Amino acid sequence: MNLPQPYLLFLGDVHGDTYAKTAFGIRDWMPDAVVGQLRLPDCTVTTGLPDLTPAQAAQQGARAMLLGVAPVGGAIPPHWIPAMIAALEAGLDLVSGLHTRLGSIPEVVAAAERTGRRLLDVRHTDRSFEPGTGVKRAGKRLLTVGTDCALGKKYTALVIARELQRRGRKVTFRATGQTGVMIAGTGLAIDAVVADFVSGAAEWLSPANDADHWDVIEGQGSLFHPAYAAVTLGLLHGSQPDAIVLCHDPTRRTIMGWPDYPIPDLNDAIDLYLRNGRVTNPQIRCVGISLNTSKLDDETRARTYRDLRSRLDLPVFDPIRDGAGELADALERL
Amino acid sequence: MNLPQPYLLFLGDVHGDTYAKTAFGIRDWMPDAVVGQLRLPDCTVTTGLPDLTPAQAAQQGARAMLLGVAPVGGAIPPHWIPAMIAALEAGLDLVSGLHTRLGSIPEVVAAAERTGRRLLDVRHTDRSFEPGTGVKRAGKRLLTVGTDCALGKKYTALVIARELQRRGRKVTFRATGQTGVMIAGTGLAIDAVVADFVSGAAEWLSPANDADHWDVIEGQGSLFHPAYAAVTLGLLHGSQPDAIVLCHDPTRRTIMGWPDYPIPDLNDAIDLYLRNGRVTNPQIRCVGISLNTSKLDDETRARTYRDLRSRLDLPVFDPIRDGAGELADALERL
Repeated sequence: MNLPQPYLLFLGDVHGDTYAKTAFGIRDWMPDAVVGQLRLPDCTVTTGLPDLTPAQAAQQGARAMLLGVAPVGGAIPPHWIPAMIAALEAGLDLVSGLHTRLGSIPEVVAAAERTGRRLLDVRHTDRSFEPGTGVKRAGKRLLTVGTDCALGKKYTALVIARELQRRGRKVTFRATGQTGVMIAGTGLAIDAVVADFVSGAAEWLSPANDADHWDVIEGQGSLFHPAYAAVTLGLLHGSQPDAIVLCHDPTRRTIMGWPDYPIPDLNDAIDLYLRNGRVTNPQIRCVGISLNTSKLDDETRARTYRDLRSRLDLPVFDPIRDGAGELADALERL
Repeated sequence: MNLPQPYLLFLGDVHGDTYAKTAFGIRDWMPDAVVGQLRLPDCTVTTGLPDLTPAQAAQQGARAMLLGVAPVGGAIPPHWIPAMIAALEAGLDLVSGLHTRLGSIPEVVAAAERTGRRLLDVRHTDRSFEPGTGVKRAGKRLLTVGTDCALGKKYTALVIARELQRRGRKVTFRATGQTGVMIAGTGLAIDAVVADFVSGAAEWLSPANDADHWDVIEGQGSLFHPAYAAVTLGLLHGSQPDAIVLCHDPTRRTIMGWPDYPIPDLNDAIDLYLRNGRVTNPQIRCVGISLNTSKLDDETRARTYRDLRSRLDLPVFDPIRDGAGELADALERL
């Protein structure tokens, strides 16, 4: 997949940074590939990039407008369509990672035909998959898992992969969501796969490799999430990880957007991931806790690290602040 | 969904009864809706029904040929196509519950157009689903779960539903697989749903109901299955069962077709189902063990019941031999 870059990031009218995690991911991991953002009047989120019209973005070299938001359900609301048509008319392609196919919106299709621009759906694949085989594959695998969605599983995997690469190890980041695919340029939005084939798709995504090669696999969803746990379990089974890193936001008390669903205790979470994971890899172990501490002051952060390290006897790190040196040390001792 | 009946049951050339469970299910639960079977030369399975050509079946009143086998992966092998075309030419519609869409096979489509017959894919739905909401629904729900696939989850659910109906209780059997849908005439093949929407589809399948109404939901796959556990977990979360019945074949040592994967200990299995199930229904409990004892002699069967009852302190029953009276008593005490 070769996506047209740089991008104009479209934020729609979302409220809350977590719904714009695609846009933030692109901005942080591909800074040279974005020229600005386009927001609708009600939007309360910003990437900090300049606000540009599609025509201004095209003048600055943008080749596509990227839909950088992920509302619940992944559907494109009808009131976004005029901005999408305006982008096509300014000469930009459209890139989307949402469930709604760009090609399913007649007005957008008509505008793309009229302007000769392309509609690129990162989430969808025409590839068909087989059920998982459960066969053990050569090479080592690490999967990031979470107490919730949208708290750092992709960032954690990217930081770990970069740290191993920096140390000269054989390593590949494996993208499993639309933003990861946009960053890595390859991968698979695994939640769009038919349920019967999720573990098979995860096996395909992380094929046999050298014995000392690490696949660092971006996790999806959470076993504790009432909507998305099926994806999480299929990815866990098909990835057959030797190691998991549990990602957690210590300020969350309930699942984001599901106020009746509590965030699990970390020991319970590790235990449920390991018990489910042992089905396809009896050697699975938890090698660290990745904390999203962006909302903590220094004192609270230090206390949280101390408490968790003593309770769990595991490396505890915030990948954005601390990097993944301690975690990589632990992996090298495995 | 109104399927054309009666059927000619097509068994292809499968080896092993478990791959023909759709055919056996239709024969056992809809005896008036089948006229015979069609087998390819290498087939080692029989339903005991007369072997008929499509023309003979049509003469005896058959309105459709039903693909009554479920090979791994659910694909239609190319060497079945001539028999499928022969059925269309004999005036029969085709009914399939497999993953391969009948409409994706050009020769079959051409024959259907030439003969004016219909191609009916029970597994596929044009309905789109939302992600699960996790919202608690009124009414009671029982889900059958298993230590493996193909060991009696559908039969167990059907027998429990019939027993509750016989007692005058409000009850609905909810079909989640192709055979169940063919029997119930409604339902959803939930393993064909996109992974992100499995729990949402399970919520749709079992909507809010009277407080004293039981949905008895056909389980799918197994949490211990390396290929299909994602479907199992999405169905478990979306069904929010108040009660699970664990289905088990005491003669199996490994997952069927996966000789490296052990069948779990029953206590471990119950525990993992309950721990995952508590995410969406903290009140979930296991109310019984459904045994497939068809391969046991009387003495072994009696010893197995005795051992399990004392170890697990739960009703233990074989739905085919014993019915579900003891289980229904336990449900009424809940």
